[in-house]
Amino acid sequence: MLQASLSKSASVQSKSGLFDSNYTKNLEYPNFGFDITHKATNSGARVGMLKTPHGIIETPNYIFCGTKASIKNLSPAHMVEAQTDIILANTYHLMIQPGAEIVEKMGGLHKFMNWNGPMLTDSGGFQVFSMGHGTCADEIKGRNSSKKESLLKITEDGAVFKSYMDGRKLTLNPEISMDLQRKLGADLIMQMDECTAYQVTKDYTAKSMEMSMRWGDRSLAAFEKTHDGSQGLYGIVQGGVYEDLRTISAQYVASRPFFGTAIGGCLGGTDEEMYGILEVCEKHNHPDRPIHFLGIGRIKDVINGVKYGIDTFDCVMPTRIARHGMALMKGVPNERINLMNTRFKDDPEPLDPTLNIPFSRDYSKAYIHHLLKAKEMLAYQILSQHNVAIINKLMREVRAAIKTDTLDNLEKEWLVD
Amino acid sequence: MLQASLSKSASVQSKSGLFDSNYTKNLEYPNFGFDITHKATNSGARVGMLKTPHGIIETPNYIFCGTKASIKNLSPAHMVEAQTDIILANTYHLMIQPGAEIVEKMGGLHKFMNWNGPMLTDSGGFQVFSMGHGTCADEIKGRNSSKKESLLKITEDGAVFKSYMDGRKLTLNPEISMDLQRKLGADLIMQMDECTAYQVTKDYTAKSMEMSMRWGDRSLAAFEKTHDGSQGLYGIVQGGVYEDLRTISAQYVASRPFFGTAIGGCLGGTDEEMYGILEVCEKHNHPDRPIHFLGIGRIKDVINGVKYGIDTFDCVMPTRIARHGMALMKGVPNERINLMNTRFKDDPEPLDPTLNIPFSRDYSKAYIHHLLKAKEMLAYQILSQHNVAIINKLMREVRAAIKTDTLDNLEKEWLVD
Repeated sequence: MLQASLSKSASVQSKSGLFDSNYTKNLEYPNFGFDITHKATNSGARVGMLKTPHGIIETPNYIFCGTKASIKNLSPAHMVEAQTDIILANTYHLMIQPGAEIVEKMGGLHKFMNWNGPMLTDSGGFQVFSMGHGTCADEIKGRNSSKKESLLKITEDGAVFKSYMDGRKLTLNPEISMDLQRKLGADLIMQMDECTAYQVTKDYTAKSMEMSMRWGDRSLAAFEKTHDGSQGLYGIVQGGVYEDLRTISAQYVASRPFFGTAIGGCLGGTDEEMYGILEVCEKHNHPDRPIHFLGIGRIKDVINGVKYGIDTFDCVMPTRIARHGMALMKGVPNERINLMNTRFKDDPEPLDPTLNIPFSRDYSKAYIHHLLKAKEMLAYQILSQHNVAIINKLMREVRAAIKTDTLDNLEKEWLVD
Repeated sequence: MLQASLSKSASVQSKSGLFDSNYTKNLEYPNFGFDITHKATNSGARVGMLKTPHGIIETPNYIFCGTKASIKNLSPAHMVEAQTDIILANTYHLMIQPGAEIVEKMGGLHKFMNWNGPMLTDSGGFQVFSMGHGTCADEIKGRNSSKKESLLKITEDGAVFKSYMDGRKLTLNPEISMDLQRKLGADLIMQMDECTAYQVTKDYTAKSMEMSMRWGDRSLAAFEKTHDGSQGLYGIVQGGVYEDLRTISAQYVASRPFFGTAIGGCLGGTDEEMYGILEVCEKHNHPDRPIHFLGIGRIKDVINGVKYGIDTFDCVMPTRIARHGMALMKGVPNERINLMNTRFKDDPEPLDPTLNIPFSRDYSKAYIHHLLKAKEMLAYQILSQHNVAIINKLMREVRAAIKTDTLDNLEKEWLVD
């Protein structure tokens, strides 16, 4: 069992020397742990046991997005029935509505939303920055977007932005993010970082990365002040698509007493570029810490990501595509079918009876097609729970395949052209 | 146990003599029954056992609206957990999307929507006519509405209207309605009738009522042709706000071999007018048949309606007001609270822990308030299921109160100013 600690001998020097002197303390995470129980022989894939105060989960695992303290269209009962182990909520959305103070007053996120398993929150930074220059997914994937800007200012201190609810000015910085995440009370929390856009220069990416490192040290310092063993802090690897920057950033995160490592920031415009970045990070990530891949989670990404040592994934995709009438499927082109398609109008077959949940087992595609055409919300419950359940099935099969070194076979079963 | 049959001695003569000669056959409903097990001593209230091919339910009971073959925002599992006995679907909506043929091909409504308990469908006529001159509720309650008209023509044959999905012309008449309801396959089905508007003259109401009687006889004749014991047909009492017309219509329905009696049509502009109509009907309704009150179902209406012998109610209200952030409550003014109200923003109390369902027991009003403000669909699942569960609790308490002649006490507990 890892007790994450700062290796004081691991010193990293950035070009500007701005991040290597601020945080030299050690931190213990006595209620947390990460045990690697199996390692694949033919890739970096591994199976682990991630221990949190709200339970132990086996990794690789998938963290489903409950952005505003609710998994869209699903209740905790739906999530449990779909064999979900862990979920997340977004600090950015919750600081705006209802406010972290309300959540704290109601007993914290777990009690507020009736989720008794492990939870993660992000720092809030990602949404602040992505609102400044496009949507989250657009940023990670390098797509352009014309989303209205709400980011007002980025300085060394942090970011100032406008609330999308009422336009009031809000500030997010490392100290505020730690305070908000303390109040929300998730098990796994994230340092504040700047998430850079695809279109920025290498020079901007380098400067931003160095600021994220300083914000990492400030996050650690703020975290330490109220550290009571209930939360584990992740550092975030930035550096965009640049191998040298990713190397520095990964070495920085490994050198600091974070509980876990998260891979963030711009991942390029193609799958190959993304996997290349994971390959670079893999060499420098702390080998004993859990590694989270921020915001990425197609079936293809999961099966490939685990080969680079990724332990947890998160993505809005399973519940978002459900709201567009899509069901994730094993072994179909593009991983999904569109239930709006007229070919399903009299299809008596269920989505996937092997999932053994009523929505995937007892309801015909014809019925789901009808519900979508009739704009009945039940369609989104059915498809959302189905997509969560099938991703959880994927993760079970991925873990089994790592244990038996059969990930390549599994890939052929799930992914077809 | 009633075996509904035509009492040939009960002859009714309308002013125009148009309805008394068409249908003189008998019909048996061997798989159906209605046993009155208790009668109140101080009102017309009664407790009964209503037997259908999909189960026996105790009455008075509440039929929840699954308009387009789905209870809005709720799954069958939610409905069962809320102790629901019976639901309905609307023929009008289903003939437009997906079409009765598709439902039949998928094995009928019960299988299509995964509801294994008793079900009712209406004739489709009500929506056709209410689309012609306002919304359903507006019509029943005598309110005006400026809803766009889709009704093209009413003749002795039936009605021609435009599909709201694609504008194509559709016809609904007694024979088509029976055919559609056969294909849908609900347990309890309705004759085709014309539902008149509040603002029409007595002369129009009388002529329309007489046409509804002729349509009743045509419905019986069409029903009889394919009658296999799987469905029970209700006749509908029309006649608007006029005592003499309601009398004729109730006597007509009692004289024909319908399984059940439904009270339809315009019920006036005030509660007093509505209860007055029920009082008139009560005198002439067939005493041994189940009586359904079409489209009415506030808590107040239920507690008062049962006193006039009403056995079943239906209304979209419980799930509709949930979509406006409202939770039905026992003993609060106007029967409900609005969770959007800022006073709930840090209220840690659940909606009603006595209902013993997670949504009403484990979730704070603060959380529901937050979900509503954040426009999270889970809010509507919570409130819809709560409202269904509390109505089912009301019905359980109503039945108990009828058995003990304590309906007046129950009224004081539920209804406050």
